[in-house]
Amino acid sequence: MRFFLHTHPQLMAIPMRLQSFASAQKWEGGVSMVQGASRGIGLEFVKQLLEKNGKGHVIATCRNPTKATALLELKNQFAERLNVLPLDVTVESTIESARSITERYGSLNLLINASGILSIPSVLQPETTLSKVQKSSMMLAYEVNAVGPILVIKHMWPLLKVGGLLGTDRDVAVVANISARVGSIGDNRLGGWHSYRSSKAALNQLTKTISVEFARKKDPIACILLHPGTVDTDLSRPFQRNVPAERLFAKEFSVQKLLNIINNAKQRDNGKFFAWDGQEIPW
Amino acid sequence: MRFFLHTHPQLMAIPMRLQSFASAQKWEGGVSMVQGASRGIGLEFVKQLLEKNGKGHVIATCRNPTKATALLELKNQFAERLNVLPLDVTVESTIESARSITERYGSLNLLINASGILSIPSVLQPETTLSKVQKSSMMLAYEVNAVGPILVIKHMWPLLKVGGLLGTDRDVAVVANISARVGSIGDNRLGGWHSYRSSKAALNQLTKTISVEFARKKDPIACILLHPGTVDTDLSRPFQRNVPAERLFAKEFSVQKLLNIINNAKQRDNGKFFAWDGQEIPW
Ligand SMILES: NC(=O)c1ccc[n+]([C@@H]2O[C@H](COP(=O)([O-])OP(=O)(O)OC[C@H]3O[C@@H](n4cnc5c(N)ncnc54)[C@H](OP(=O)(O)O)[C@@H]3O)[C@@H](O)[C@H]2O)c1
Ligand SMILES: NC(=O)c1ccc[n+]([C@@H]2O[C@H](COP(=O)([O-])OP(=O)(O)OC[C@H]3O[C@@H](n4cnc5c(N)ncnc54)[C@H](OP(=O)(O)O)[C@@H]3O)[C@@H](O)[C@H]2O)c1
Repeated sequence: MRFFLHTHPQLMAIPMRLQSFASAQKWEGGVSMVQGASRGIGLEFVKQLLEKNGKGHVIATCRNPTKATALLELKNQFAERLNVLPLDVTVESTIESARSITERYGSLNLLINASGILSIPSVLQPETTLSKVQKSSMMLAYEVNAVGPILVIKHMWPLLKVGGLLGTDRDVAVVANISARVGSIGDNRLGGWHSYRSSKAALNQLTKTISVEFARKKDPIACILLHPGTVDTDLSRPFQRNVPAERLFAKEFSVQKLLNIINNAKQRDNGKFFAWDGQEIPW
Repeated sequence: MRFFLHTHPQLMAIPMRLQSFASAQKWEGGVSMVQGASRGIGLEFVKQLLEKNGKGHVIATCRNPTKATALLELKNQFAERLNVLPLDVTVESTIESARSITERYGSLNLLINASGILSIPSVLQPETTLSKVQKSSMMLAYEVNAVGPILVIKHMWPLLKVGGLLGTDRDVAVVANISARVGSIGDNRLGGWHSYRSSKAALNQLTKTISVEFARKKDPIACILLHPGTVDTDLSRPFQRNVPAERLFAKEFSVQKLLNIINNAKQRDNGKFFAWDGQEIPW
């Protein structure tokens, strides 16, 4: 594995157990983690990050690596540049395990939280009316879509601080939480989908909340929220009927647009909510 | 109990089991439910609603009526105008029981969801940093502050429709969810309090979501969110140290202001978020 020697005065602010890594290694092309990488948008992020000019390391996490065939194929192709780890956002111990393996890299330059649920047959159905709101669905969507990504950031925070100080093409480490336009309260004109909308609004509030702490502590991390558009994946499939063809994006297109936003993210973008086309979305 | 005979063509839209009540009774001064009435702001709402010109019925719900001494004192004073019922927003069967007793009134003109949690010794502590975010606290705050009030509205919805059609001084039935300015994402400048902020942002999104459905169905219900200011209650007590005296409101003052907003609420206010002084708060 190639790396550059690098030291930085602010690295003294890094937790002791990371300092030895931090002061030694800057990975060429950076270290990126994609959480929720078995399918859909997350998988496509892994692909595009690996294909980009043959550099950079990617840690792809998913609930069940042995069943994530598309990821395992990428592993065959990209060998040591890709590390596939088990992580279920509802089981905090799996986040901690992934964190300790990631500590071997010493730093993280990018964390993308791509996991998310909208419907699960016979478990979670997007609500068409208040009468159908069920507590169990509400709690599950919140656990996976709002709490999960925040716990991942909590555990990866020290590594992101190191990554931000070491620097890559960007000034800062980036945390990108994949939210959704339907999480916007101000833009809510259709109603319905209570559990999903509520969990994504909560994710937005949580991301804003931690962005305030990162800014106050002058951590070199920009935390952003992204709406990918309506993207042709398993998640949107049951609801694509009324989507005009030109508004239904291929995941390749959406992820290319989102990576463009991520790669150009600056400190000043910390705490903002962007659509795929770079437009800000109201809260 | 006094009532007026009343019929209304739109009452045919009311569920069968409520039609007999609905077509018969309009309670003088209306029927109001205050959910979360054992203490603090909820208790003060009950008091002021009962004291208002000797009219109107109040259903006050709380987790443990036998221990709610202040409510029981009001019961002595106001007799049949006050009905105290058990309701824990985390136990849906208690909401259903309260609903079936409330069905005897045939209608609801006002529902105030005043219950809420911010801290519970050795269970829930408002987070001062991301490092202290715990899944259990996140889930509990969401269950009580966001899901709970929505389940109450779900079950009282048919009664509110009747109440809105029968009319009181207002054109519409009113649902008032007590939110908090710290639930605003746009106004989040301090960070921290992750579980509380996130649950209130979710409550805001859920209230907006159901307001859209009420509007589309032309239900005569206005669903609003209220910020009471910083009010001297058990909830705020551990956090009052840095609050200037003139910004710490007596509950009498805050509730008077909030009742003013509620009493003047119109259909056009459906889905809005107001502070105690009538100013709208950004999402
Ligand atoms: N597609 C759209 O139109 C659209 C629009 C707006 C926002 N989004 C958001 O974009 C993100 C990606 O969605 P997608 O369209 O790619 O959906 P998808 O194809 O259904 O993929 C969802 C991913 O989330 C993972 N996941 C689910 N529960 C998890 C858990 N408990 N722990 C870890 N991972 C878990 C899934 O893993 P398994 O394979 O193990 O189930 C899968 O990798 C989501 O946050 C979604 O809300 C999508
Ligand atoms: N005080 C403030 O400065 C302030 C500021 C902004 C917003 N608020 C909001 O205003 C509302 C009222 O707060 P407060 O200041 O009056 O607080 P409080 O004095 O602590 O009263 C909270 C009330 O919520 C009830 N409650 C808690 N968990 C419940 C559950 N599972 N089911 C039913 N009821 C439950 C409590 O009942 P028990 O007696 O059974 O515990 C109590 O009646 C809350 O939604 C709060 O978030 C308050």
